[in-house]
Amino acid sequence: MLLEAIYHRPKQNWAYAYDNSTLHIRIRTKKNDAQRVELIAGDKYNWSGTFTITDMSVLSSDALFDYWEVSIEPPFRRLRYAFRLTDGDETVIMTESGFPAELPDNPNAFFDFPYINPVDVFAPPAWVKDAVFYQIFPERFANGDPSLNPAETEAWGGKPTPTNFFGGDLQGVLDHLDYLSELGINAVYFTPLFEATTNHKYDTENYMQVDRHFGSNGTLKELVEACHARGIRVLLDAVFNHAGRTFPPFVDLLKNGDKSVYANWFHVREWPLRVEEGIPTYETFAFEPMMPKLNTENPDVKAYLFNVARYWIEKIGIDGWRLDVANEVDHQFWREFRQTVKAVNPEAYILGEIWHDAMMWLEGDQFDSVMNYPFTNAVLDFFGHQTIDAKAFADAIGKQLAAYPQQVTETAFNLLDSHDTPRLLTICGEDARAMKLAALFQLTYPGTPCIYYGDEVGMNGEGDPDCRKCMVWEPEQQNQDLLAFYKQALALRREHAALRSSAIRFLQAANGENGGVIVYERREGDERILVAMNARGREAVAAVPSGGSWVSLLGDEQRLEPAAGKLLLQLPGYGYGIWKQLN
Amino acid sequence: MLLEAIYHRPKQNWAYAYDNSTLHIRIRTKKNDAQRVELIAGDKYNWSGTFTITDMSVLSSDALFDYWEVSIEPPFRRLRYAFRLTDGDETVIMTESGFPAELPDNPNAFFDFPYINPVDVFAPPAWVKDAVFYQIFPERFANGDPSLNPAETEAWGGKPTPTNFFGGDLQGVLDHLDYLSELGINAVYFTPLFEATTNHKYDTENYMQVDRHFGSNGTLKELVEACHARGIRVLLDAVFNHAGRTFPPFVDLLKNGDKSVYANWFHVREWPLRVEEGIPTYETFAFEPMMPKLNTENPDVKAYLFNVARYWIEKIGIDGWRLDVANEVDHQFWREFRQTVKAVNPEAYILGEIWHDAMMWLEGDQFDSVMNYPFTNAVLDFFGHQTIDAKAFADAIGKQLAAYPQQVTETAFNLLDSHDTPRLLTICGEDARAMKLAALFQLTYPGTPCIYYGDEVGMNGEGDPDCRKCMVWEPEQQNQDLLAFYKQALALRREHAALRSSAIRFLQAANGENGGVIVYERREGDERILVAMNARGREAVAAVPSGGSWVSLLGDEQRLEPAAGKLLLQLPGYGYGIWKQLN
Repeated sequence: MLLEAIYHRPKQNWAYAYDNSTLHIRIRTKKNDAQRVELIAGDKYNWSGTFTITDMSVLSSDALFDYWEVSIEPPFRRLRYAFRLTDGDETVIMTESGFPAELPDNPNAFFDFPYINPVDVFAPPAWVKDAVFYQIFPERFANGDPSLNPAETEAWGGKPTPTNFFGGDLQGVLDHLDYLSELGINAVYFTPLFEATTNHKYDTENYMQVDRHFGSNGTLKELVEACHARGIRVLLDAVFNHAGRTFPPFVDLLKNGDKSVYANWFHVREWPLRVEEGIPTYETFAFEPMMPKLNTENPDVKAYLFNVARYWIEKIGIDGWRLDVANEVDHQFWREFRQTVKAVNPEAYILGEIWHDAMMWLEGDQFDSVMNYPFTNAVLDFFGHQTIDAKAFADAIGKQLAAYPQQVTETAFNLLDSHDTPRLLTICGEDARAMKLAALFQLTYPGTPCIYYGDEVGMNGEGDPDCRKCMVWEPEQQNQDLLAFYKQALALRREHAALRSSAIRFLQAANGENGGVIVYERREGDERILVAMNARGREAVAAVPSGGSWVSLLGDEQRLEPAAGKLLLQLPGYGYGIWKQLN
Repeated sequence: MLLEAIYHRPKQNWAYAYDNSTLHIRIRTKKNDAQRVELIAGDKYNWSGTFTITDMSVLSSDALFDYWEVSIEPPFRRLRYAFRLTDGDETVIMTESGFPAELPDNPNAFFDFPYINPVDVFAPPAWVKDAVFYQIFPERFANGDPSLNPAETEAWGGKPTPTNFFGGDLQGVLDHLDYLSELGINAVYFTPLFEATTNHKYDTENYMQVDRHFGSNGTLKELVEACHARGIRVLLDAVFNHAGRTFPPFVDLLKNGDKSVYANWFHVREWPLRVEEGIPTYETFAFEPMMPKLNTENPDVKAYLFNVARYWIEKIGIDGWRLDVANEVDHQFWREFRQTVKAVNPEAYILGEIWHDAMMWLEGDQFDSVMNYPFTNAVLDFFGHQTIDAKAFADAIGKQLAAYPQQVTETAFNLLDSHDTPRLLTICGEDARAMKLAALFQLTYPGTPCIYYGDEVGMNGEGDPDCRKCMVWEPEQQNQDLLAFYKQALALRREHAALRSSAIRFLQAANGENGGVIVYERREGDERILVAMNARGREAVAAVPSGGSWVSLLGDEQRLEPAAGKLLLQLPGYGYGIWKQLN
C-alpha cells in the first residue's frame, strides 16, 4: 500500500460532526490501492467496553486518490479512533503517530475527536439546501419607475459600458415577481443596492440607504415582503471589505488627512493620501483608489458595520448577506459578524465570496456557505470550454465532494456565471445545447444553484461590462425553448429530493472515445434517479450496470430496461436523459 | 516524482502569517524525491508586475516526507502562489486545482493567501518563548503553614494514595522561592488551587476562593507579587470542563432535580440524576460522577466562568491559565474566553491541555499553546523506554516541526512528565544518566520547557498517585549531581538564544549500530551551537560535517577541530556534549 498517499487529520473535512450525535470520519488512500478500510473506534474512557470496528466506504475518488468515509454515532459524544487498511496482501494500521507494526494495545496514540459540542457543529440554515437562487444585477433587470432614472440613463437594451446607466430599479423587480415564481426559483441574490456612485454600487456611499436610483428603503421592504409572500428569500450584498470614495468617513479623511477622526477607519500606509504610479498610499480593493479598504479591526468600524448588518435583517426583513471580497477581511470580524447576525435571526444565511478553497471559513464559526467557484470551473471546463474530458470532470467533482464536510456540499452556492464572469451561453460557444447540459448538471447536483438573471432566456455576454446587459423581456427575443428547459429542470429539482441530496455516484465518466459522456446516480432514501448526458457533438452510447427498470422524468414516458444487467443508453450529440427507478 | 505524496492546503501549518508582514509557505514531498522546490508567487491584482520565483528549503523530514518552507513578505499583504518541483528529470507544477501540464498563464487557479490581517496572526505573548516552567502540585510541594493542615494530614514524605493529604500549601511555595530562582526557572504552573474536596482539587467547589488548606486569596496574591518581583510568572489551572460534586449549583441540582434553577448548567441525559452500571445519567469528566461536566454553551455558565477568568488576572495578578480537559469544551467558549482574558491582560498566557494534534486550537482565536504530548512521547520513547532509535526519534521530531506554524513550535509547552504520568526518572529506568539526556534535549529544544517539581532532585514515581510524592527537601536526600546538571542546563538555555530559537537541524540520527546517537545544531543569528548525545550504554562515535572550530559550553574548555571537514565526536555511554562555534 502506498503509505505516502494515506492522509487523515482530525477536524475540517476529515473528522467532523455532521449533527449533534453523528461524526463523519474520512481517510484518503491512493486510488484503487486499498481494498478495505475499517475504522476502529471507541470511547477513550471505556475503550474495552465500547470499541467497534466498522467498514468504511468510498465517498468519492479523483485522479490520484480514493476518499473513504464512515458515519458513526459515538455513545458518549467522544471518539478515539484508528484505521485498518488492507489490500489483500498487506494490512496497515494508521494512528495519529504513524503506521505502527501492530494495532497498539491501548488507544492513547490513536486519533481523537474529543467531544461533540453542539455549538461547534457546522449547521447552515435548513432552508438553504432546498433553495435555488436567482442573481439580479439591479441596474439591469427591469426599470419599473422611470422617475428614478439617473440623469444620463440610456435606452433599455443598449450596450453596457463600465459607467453607463439603464434605469433598472426595485420596482422593476416587484413588477416581475410572477416571472420569478413561474421560473421556479425561491431566493433572490441582489448585487449591491445601497447608495453609491457607480452602476454596480460596489463603492458604497451610504450603507443605511437604498440607492435613490433603485428606490427607497421602503421599496425594498415592500419587495422583501412581496417575495416572502411567494416563498422567495432575499439576500443582499454586504460590501464590508471596502467603502466608496464618497463614503463620508473617507471624504473626511481626504479632507482632514491624519487629523481626521476617521484616520483609523482605513489602512493608510503613508500620508497624505495619494496615488503613485497606480498604487494608492492607502489600502484598497485591488489597487482601485475609489474603493478604500475598511479597517475591520477597529471597534468603531465593527460597531458601524454590525449595525448595518442588523438593520437590514431586523427592519427590512432580508434573509441574509452575501459577503463581498470576504476572504480579505479578517476572520475575527466574520466571527463577530456571525454572532451579530444569528442573534437577530438564527435562520439568516451568510454567504462568502471566496474563489478558492474555503475550508477555514466553513467550520461553523464564520460562514454558512461560499460561492463555489471550484465547482464552476469544473463545469465550465467540461461543458463549456470543453478542455477536460468526462474522467477529468468526475475527478474534479470527486475531489470537491471530499474537500468539505457534507453540510458544506449540501449548501454550496453553485453558480455558473455572474456579473464578474462571461455569461454561461457565451462560455458554451453560444451553443444552447451545451449550456443546457451545464445547467442540468448544476440543477441535479447537491448544493444551492444560482442562476444569473437572463441566462434562462438565452442572454449572452463576455466579461464585465458585457455580462451586465439589460434583461431581455420581449418574449420573441427570449429563447423560449431554453426558458422551458430551465422551468422543467427546476421543477424536477423541486419535486425530487434525490436531486438535492448529497449522494452522487458516477456510473460512467471516461476519457477517450466516450470522453463526452457522464452518467450518474442520485439517491435519497428509496428514490433513485439516473442522469445521463453527452456533452459533445457526436452520438455516443453508455452502458451502465443496473438491476431495475427506469422511467424518464422528461415527460416522454420513455422506459429503460436493463439487458444482461446493464442499461444501454443511446445519446445523440448534446443529448441527455433523466430517469427514475421504478420500485 | 510521487504526486500522491505532495501535499499543501492553505492556512494551518501550510500557509500562515508568521507576523504582520511575513508569510511562511510549506509543501510536503516524498522523502528524498524532489531536488528543488520553488514558490512562484505574486500579487493577484498585479501579477505580471510582482511575481517572483523563490527557492524553498527543507524545514524538516520524517520517515516518509520532506517538508519544504519559504518565508516571504508580500508587498501588498496578499499572495497568489503555486509550486514548481523538480527532481532532475521531471518538473511538476502544483496549483490549487492539481498538477497542470504547464504553468498556467494566469494565476487564477493558483493557491491564495488573500490578505494578512494582523488580528488573525497567531501571536502568543512574547515572554512565553523565553519561559521555563516549573509545575507544582501544591499539596505536595512544601508545608509552610501547618495551621492550615487538613485534619487527616499525614507525615511529610509518606506514601501517596488517591485520597490522603500531606499539608502542602502556598506558604510552602513562598518559603522556597529562593530555591526556584536558583534553579533557574522563570514561571510556575500550579495544578488547581481552588476550594475542593480532593487532594488534587480538580473537583472545584468554589472557583473564587483559594482552598482553605492552601491559604487564602490574599496568600496567593502575596505569592504572585513575590514571584513577579523575582521575574517569575504564575499560571493557574482553569478546570472549566467540569465542576466538583460540592459546587453549589450542582448541589442544588442534586437537591432539586429538573426544578433546579441550575438545570441547564450541566448536561443531564436523564432525570433523576443517578449512576447506572458505572455510567452517570449526566455528562461528566470521563465517567466520574463527582465531576459533572459544565454546560459551557449556557450564557449564564459562560458569564460565571469568564468572571472567574477575569478575577484572578485582574485582582490577584496571575499571568495566565492552563485549561484542563480543554479539548472537550466547545471552541466557541474558548474564543470568547480568549477575548475576555486578553481584554484584561493582552500578555496573559492561555495554555490548553490537549494530548493530541491541536492545530484547530492554535490558529490565533483560541489558545496560545498546548501541552505538547507528541513531543513528550517521542522523547520518552527514545531516551526513556528506548523503544525507538535515533532515526525514528528525529523523524518524530521532524514531523512535529512541520505539523504546526513556527510560532507554535516556539512556544509549545514541552513537558516530559506531570501529575498525570509516571515520573521521568522512573520512565528512564531509574537511570539518572538517561534522564539527564532527556532533560537536556528538552532544555535545548525550541518551545517552553516545563519541569515537574522534584524531578531535578531525583524524585521517582509510577503513575498517579505515586508521581505525587512529597517534595524532597533534605539536601542529603536530593540528587545533588542531577540538581547541578539542571541548573547548568537552564543557565545555558538562558544565556544562549540559539538554544531557544526554532532552528534545529539534525546532523546525525541513524538506526542500527549508532542508533543511540543524535547530533543536532541550534542556531540564532550568528550563534551556532552543537549538541551531541549518546542515549545508549555503549560508547559511540559520531562524525558530522563541520567547517569551523567549536568550544565546549560545559565548563571544561574542550575544543573541537574538524578533520577533513568533519568533527569526530567520541561519546561514552550516556555521554553528551554542547559546543559553541568560534567565530
